[in-house]
Amino acid sequence: MSHAALRRAAVVGTGLIGGSIGLGLRRAGWYVTGTDADPTAAQRALELSAIDAIGEDPEAEITFVATPVGTVVREVELALARGGGVVTDVGSVKAPIGAAVRDERFVPGHPMAGSEQEGVEGADEDLFQGAVWVLTAGEYTDDAAYAKVHSVVTSLGADVVTMPADRHDALVAMVSHVPHLTAATLMKLADERAVEHGALLRLAAGGFRDMTRIAAGHPGIWPDICGENRAAIIDVLDRLIDALGDVRAIVADDDREALLDVLETARAARTNLPTTAAKPEDLAELRIQVPDRPGELAAITTTATDLGVNIYDMEIAHSSEGPRGVVIMVVDAHRAASFRDILAGGGYHVSVRSLS
Amino acid sequence: MSHAALRRAAVVGTGLIGGSIGLGLRRAGWYVTGTDADPTAAQRALELSAIDAIGEDPEAEITFVATPVGTVVREVELALARGGGVVTDVGSVKAPIGAAVRDERFVPGHPMAGSEQEGVEGADEDLFQGAVWVLTAGEYTDDAAYAKVHSVVTSLGADVVTMPADRHDALVAMVSHVPHLTAATLMKLADERAVEHGALLRLAAGGFRDMTRIAAGHPGIWPDICGENRAAIIDVLDRLIDALGDVRAIVADDDREALLDVLETARAARTNLPTTAAKPEDLAELRIQVPDRPGELAAITTTATDLGVNIYDMEIAHSSEGPRGVVIMVVDAHRAASFRDILAGGGYHVSVRSLS
Repeated sequence: MSHAALRRAAVVGTGLIGGSIGLGLRRAGWYVTGTDADPTAAQRALELSAIDAIGEDPEAEITFVATPVGTVVREVELALARGGGVVTDVGSVKAPIGAAVRDERFVPGHPMAGSEQEGVEGADEDLFQGAVWVLTAGEYTDDAAYAKVHSVVTSLGADVVTMPADRHDALVAMVSHVPHLTAATLMKLADERAVEHGALLRLAAGGFRDMTRIAAGHPGIWPDICGENRAAIIDVLDRLIDALGDVRAIVADDDREALLDVLETARAARTNLPTTAAKPEDLAELRIQVPDRPGELAAITTTATDLGVNIYDMEIAHSSEGPRGVVIMVVDAHRAASFRDILAGGGYHVSVRSLS
Repeated sequence: MSHAALRRAAVVGTGLIGGSIGLGLRRAGWYVTGTDADPTAAQRALELSAIDAIGEDPEAEITFVATPVGTVVREVELALARGGGVVTDVGSVKAPIGAAVRDERFVPGHPMAGSEQEGVEGADEDLFQGAVWVLTAGEYTDDAAYAKVHSVVTSLGADVVTMPADRHDALVAMVSHVPHLTAATLMKLADERAVEHGALLRLAAGGFRDMTRIAAGHPGIWPDICGENRAAIIDVLDRLIDALGDVRAIVADDDREALLDVLETARAARTNLPTTAAKPEDLAELRIQVPDRPGELAAITTTATDLGVNIYDMEIAHSSEGPRGVVIMVVDAHRAASFRDILAGGGYHVSVRSLS
C-alpha cells in the first residue's frame, strides 16, 4: 500500500508522549512523520518505529504537538500554517495556550498519562490505554476538528474528558502539580534528615516509596508548568498548607475523633477513585442533532463531563441538507437518559438506543 | 514429630502482622499458638493455617505481641509473666513502650511492612521478605534475648536495623507517620473540590494514585500512633509546612533555579533510595569477642546502623570459659573493614573473613 492511501499524522516532539502517540497511531495503521528540536531524538524515534519518517507533513490530517509547555504555542502556530489538518497539543497547562491560539483547527489537549522514564526510549504504544485525555475545546474550535481529535485520541485507548481550559488548570493543580511538588518536598526533607541519620532512608517502606515515586520524574518540565499555572498552584498549595496546619492542631490536641474523621473521609474518597470500565451492556448510543457551528460539540461534551457522563466513542455526521449535523456518542447506559433529558432541555433533539 | 520437639512461638494478636509472622514461622517449622482479643480473628487465623492452635503457650521461646500500639505494654507484661521466653512487639512507636517495660527479656521491634489489606485475611508468609525490621533494644535488653529475636526475625526474611527508640520514633515520623497524614490530607482536599467539579477525580492519574494509596489504609490505628508519637509528628509536620511555604514562595516568584534545585535534590534522593540486596560475594563475616553483659550487642548493632552497615545474619556464641561470648555477624563486604576498625577502636577484638 502506498503512503498516499494511509491516514497521515505528524508528531512534533518525539519524546515519551510524542513517541507513544506515534507507536499507537502506527499500530492503528497510520503513516506518521515526526520532528524533534533534538535531531538525535527524532532519529531514535525512527529506529524505535515510533515514526515512519523524519520530517514535516503538510498533508497530515492531524498534528500532535508534544513539546514542552513553553514552546507549544509557537509549534502549534507553525503546524497550523504548514497545512490544512487539525492540530492538537499535549501541554499540562491549557488556559494560556488556548488564549494564545485562537484557531478553529486547534483543539487543546492533555493526556493524563506519563511514566518515570524519559524520552522516546520510554515510549509505549499502550501508554494511553484507559488513561483520561482532556480536551479543552472552546468557542474557537470547529466541531469537525474537535470530533476528529476526539476520535483519534479515543482510538489510542484514551478516555476523553472535555472541560473548559481554566477548569482543567485548576483541577490538575490539585491532582497533579501540587502532589508532585509535595512529593518532592517530602523527599527533600527526608533526605536532609538522612544526612544526620544514615538509617532514615532504610526505614522508607512501601508507603513512602509510593508517595515519593513521582519525585523521580524529570524536573525540566516543571518551571514552565509552575510558571504557566502559577495562580492555581498557589491556591492549592495554600489550601494544603492550611489543611496540614489543621492536622497539626488535631495531633497536638490529641483530638482522636477529628483525626479519625479526616482519615475516614480520605479513605472513602481513595477507595472510590474512579477507574475506567466499559462493557457493551453498560453502554448506550446517543444521536444528537446539532447546528453546524463552532463550539456546539464542545458545549455538549462539557455538559457530559459536568454530569459525570463518560464518552467512550464519538463521531460526527454532517448533513448534506443544510447547516446541521448528527453527533453519535457512546456513553454509560445508566446515565444516558438523564443526559438526554438535560440536552433536550437545552433545545437539542436526542435519541438513545442501548448497545447490549 | 511431636509438638514438644518443635521450636515453639506464640503470637498475641492474629491480625495482618501477627498472622504473617505465624505463617512465616510455621513455614520455617515452628509450632505456633495464637490468641486475639477477637475470638473470631483467632479462629480465622487457625483456619488459614497462620497458627497451629488457639491459646497461650508458657513454653514458647519467643512471643510476638502484634496488638495495636495502645495495648502493647500490657500484653508484653502479660507475656513476660506467662513464661521464660523472650518477648518482642511490632508497635509503630517505640520510646513509650521501651520506657514502660524495662525487662531484659523484652526486645522492642517494628517491622516496616504492611499492606492495604486488613486482618489475617491479608496475612502473607512473605510479607517481611526484604523488609526492614527495626529492633530498639537498649540498656535493659539481654544480649541473648536480642540475638534470639534478631535471628528469628531474620529467618522471616527481614533485614534487621538496630537503633535507639527515640531515634526510631523521629525517623518513622518522617518516613511513615507524616507521609500518611499528608496523603490523607491531599486526598481529602481533592475530594472536597470534587464536590464542585465532578470530573476532578477522573483526572487523578498514576502519580496521584501512588501518592494517596496509603490513605486507603485502616484509620483505626492512627489515633494511638499520633498520640504516642505526638512530639516527633508535630516536629515533622512543622518542617513540612515550612518547606511547602518555601515552595509556594518559589512558585510565586517564578524562581526557576530554586525550583529546579528542589526537584533535582528530591529526584537524586528518590533515585538513591536504598534497596536490599545480598549476594554472597558482597558479604563478609565478622567475629567479635564481647563481654557477656546487657546492652553490649545493642551497642554494636547500633554502631553498625550508624555506619550504614547492613547486618544480614547474626548469631551469638557464649563461651564456656567465662563471662564473654563471640558475636558472629554477616555484613556488607565493602563496609566490613571500616566497621572492624571502629569496633577495634572501641576496644573490641574483631576478625573478618570473606564469604565469597
